[in-house]
Amino acid sequence: MDRHPYQSGLFTDHYQLTMAQGYFLQGRQETSAVFDYFFRRCPFGGAYVVYAGLETLLDALEGFHFSAEDCDFLREQGFGEAFTDYLRDFRFRGDIFSPPEGELVFPHAPVLRVEGNLIECQLIETLVLNVLNFQSLIATKAARIRQVIGPDRTLMEFGLRRAQGLGGIHATRAALVGGAESTSNVYAARAFGVPSVGTQAHAWIQSFDDELTAFREFARHYPDNCILLVDTYDTIRSGVPNAIIVARELAKEGHALAGIRLDSGDLLALSQAARAQLDAAGLKDVHIVASNQLDEFKIAALLDAGAPIDSFGVGTDLATGKDDANLDGIYKLAMSGGKDRLKLSESPAKAILPGSKEVRRYFDAEGGMAADVVCRNTDGKSIDARLLPKPGESLPLKGLRYEVLQQPVMTGGHRTAPPRQAKQIRECVQNNLSRLPQGYKALNNPAAYPVAASHELLEHRLHLQNEIRSRL
Amino acid sequence: MDRHPYQSGLFTDHYQLTMAQGYFLQGRQETSAVFDYFFRRCPFGGAYVVYAGLETLLDALEGFHFSAEDCDFLREQGFGEAFTDYLRDFRFRGDIFSPPEGELVFPHAPVLRVEGNLIECQLIETLVLNVLNFQSLIATKAARIRQVIGPDRTLMEFGLRRAQGLGGIHATRAALVGGAESTSNVYAARAFGVPSVGTQAHAWIQSFDDELTAFREFARHYPDNCILLVDTYDTIRSGVPNAIIVARELAKEGHALAGIRLDSGDLLALSQAARAQLDAAGLKDVHIVASNQLDEFKIAALLDAGAPIDSFGVGTDLATGKDDANLDGIYKLAMSGGKDRLKLSESPAKAILPGSKEVRRYFDAEGGMAADVVCRNTDGKSIDARLLPKPGESLPLKGLRYEVLQQPVMTGGHRTAPPRQAKQIRECVQNNLSRLPQGYKALNNPAAYPVAASHELLEHRLHLQNEIRSRL
Repeated sequence: MDRHPYQSGLFTDHYQLTMAQGYFLQGRQETSAVFDYFFRRCPFGGAYVVYAGLETLLDALEGFHFSAEDCDFLREQGFGEAFTDYLRDFRFRGDIFSPPEGELVFPHAPVLRVEGNLIECQLIETLVLNVLNFQSLIATKAARIRQVIGPDRTLMEFGLRRAQGLGGIHATRAALVGGAESTSNVYAARAFGVPSVGTQAHAWIQSFDDELTAFREFARHYPDNCILLVDTYDTIRSGVPNAIIVARELAKEGHALAGIRLDSGDLLALSQAARAQLDAAGLKDVHIVASNQLDEFKIAALLDAGAPIDSFGVGTDLATGKDDANLDGIYKLAMSGGKDRLKLSESPAKAILPGSKEVRRYFDAEGGMAADVVCRNTDGKSIDARLLPKPGESLPLKGLRYEVLQQPVMTGGHRTAPPRQAKQIRECVQNNLSRLPQGYKALNNPAAYPVAASHELLEHRLHLQNEIRSRL
Repeated sequence: MDRHPYQSGLFTDHYQLTMAQGYFLQGRQETSAVFDYFFRRCPFGGAYVVYAGLETLLDALEGFHFSAEDCDFLREQGFGEAFTDYLRDFRFRGDIFSPPEGELVFPHAPVLRVEGNLIECQLIETLVLNVLNFQSLIATKAARIRQVIGPDRTLMEFGLRRAQGLGGIHATRAALVGGAESTSNVYAARAFGVPSVGTQAHAWIQSFDDELTAFREFARHYPDNCILLVDTYDTIRSGVPNAIIVARELAKEGHALAGIRLDSGDLLALSQAARAQLDAAGLKDVHIVASNQLDEFKIAALLDAGAPIDSFGVGTDLATGKDDANLDGIYKLAMSGGKDRLKLSESPAKAILPGSKEVRRYFDAEGGMAADVVCRNTDGKSIDARLLPKPGESLPLKGLRYEVLQQPVMTGGHRTAPPRQAKQIRECVQNNLSRLPQGYKALNNPAAYPVAASHELLEHRLHLQNEIRSRL
């Protein structure tokens, strides 16, 4: 592997190259284009998405190129010499307008806008979608879990073993953006500058003839970072009592047992019984860590029932999204050669919005998020906004201030600001969530956050639609 | 990126390193161990799993090592100098016993067995799980789709844009193993030696002022590989009629339109109407390609209803598993230091099987697969087999011949045979599926394939369980 796969021009769908060669052969190298990235449905039954992956995408775009070997391969696949020579010198030199990574975003409103020539905008489509769809999915999952566990408990990402192959690398990054403090994934920890964590699995315990010896030996090597897995044989009759013995032995030598980990069974009953045993032994500071196929719903049920769990390790659900394994983000041509572009759809909710647009985010007097409105860049300050997806009722915005979500993050193929680390972005996510009213954050059946479009934009779309239909 | 992430020793969970350092500090570098990889549930409501990823895993294990930089990072994380010096020279030198990639495997029976020293077996756990869980999941999905579409239609994998980040690379490989002929993913096509495919997206059509010009221009550049996307404006009133015009123009110049693609709407009605229009125009050889959030159930419904679709492009569901995004494979210590090892579980169905074992696959007189039985390596030829997971009734095996599934695929850290390509393995998958009786292949509510364990093994487990319990 000579470079990161995201920097290979081959990290794309074949049809992007077929189209790009077509544009090239027609001499449309300099035809301008505008594409929008957006999605239509929030995952996990939620009402928001934590926008993630932008920093990864910008890194990738700065390095995205076709090596001589890539071009050779494409010629073997039937692409012509003139086009592959063009690709040899290809670099993305377009502009990208986007909210900062970690911003909350909502269905139907454009998130990221790419402006450049038709070829460069087309060639990066797959990369844009692959990076943003996945990381936004996972960051959203992490934020939902963080919401449930609150600021004082710990969230650890444990998913590499069930992650989707190499997807586990950026799953960890996105989990760290969305709300996890740490990860078991050592590769990602190094790549993204966070500590990795982990103590022992059942194999450690099983490899000794008895549990107490296994615990003692572990504590001997890791006296100040000792979390004992207590469910190998019998949590309450064996695991916790043995952990208490080891905690007392550690205390005599000036160390403190950090915690115990529960990884099976009824986590509510076991955590309560373990807490009682630990407390009775004077070990109130020994933390209880829980893992085993957790998600935000199971954690909420545990905490609502009073489970005394201090720290959660979440694997499969956090690293894959599990039963909602993708964000349905799409990338659509909105403008080319100076003309606004459209496609028609049988479903009004799926109709795209033409032309170059921006999203205005409105805030109430207390700074809470009130609504997002998609506008033409030429719309005035005062607009008549109609709810999406199916253009509906008018949305009152009077007196609300707004900010424009899309700001330049890449100009002429270069970042406009230095990269930000996952940890910094995580802090922004928590701040952003604090501005989102509670009703949109409910775990079950949240209210839909209002997303609207300006009447001018909708009228313009209708006009274009009618124009196209009249020609059919 | 200096090497493939799968060859980095850091592609692991932190606790593997914590345990490995513990074993090292105890001088257990040479303690022998046996680990089993197995799973407990088939994905997608099915009754079989297509075992995939083995070739990727063996490649990775041959290169798995800790670079000087990896060791520096681990020291920064608190690992000791003696241990990181040991890691600097670490290579996996163990033995692996496995069915060939592409074999059908079933819940509860060991699939792959790793034998080596405790440290090397522990350090590769995350890699084994990450590779095999994901590729087996996706290969199974591909096999299910292939089963539905039959041998004469084409299956193309289109999922890179919705794949889980870099997971899209091996998603493609696994899809090719399980039953897809081709992919849109150019990166994976090069990596795994298959052609990539794709023609045009809506953006191509939209970038022209009218659909007919867009079609004509595409056909001009790709006269012998022209598939036209017909749903940008109106499939029946515009897309197919325009495709017919272009097909006639191509024919005049000695070319043939390859196909049309439907990517939205009612695929049954649209494919029937399009077929009728094409046939009426004498274009019986123009193929109909369908895509748009397909899975095996939707495809089965379309084909059962008589949809005249020749080729399917499947994206998200094939590249991620979508609503069943992981295989729950685990890796458990079965033996160490010459002793059979066990953990206890509250659920009898989750109890692991101790010691070094093999799986015997029994065949009926016609060569059909009859049952899998987990045996101790020391069991005789004639065994009393009891159904798993909860040991149940006796399984009649009299007169059936068997083969042992696990064969050496890696010895002393080296492959025992040269790598096989995805395409070769795909042929084996189809052959294996032909030996699986129909009842186990039903899309909905298939019968459970019989998996049993020898009475001797179960008695041995009971004995060990009682021994452990007596000590608690």
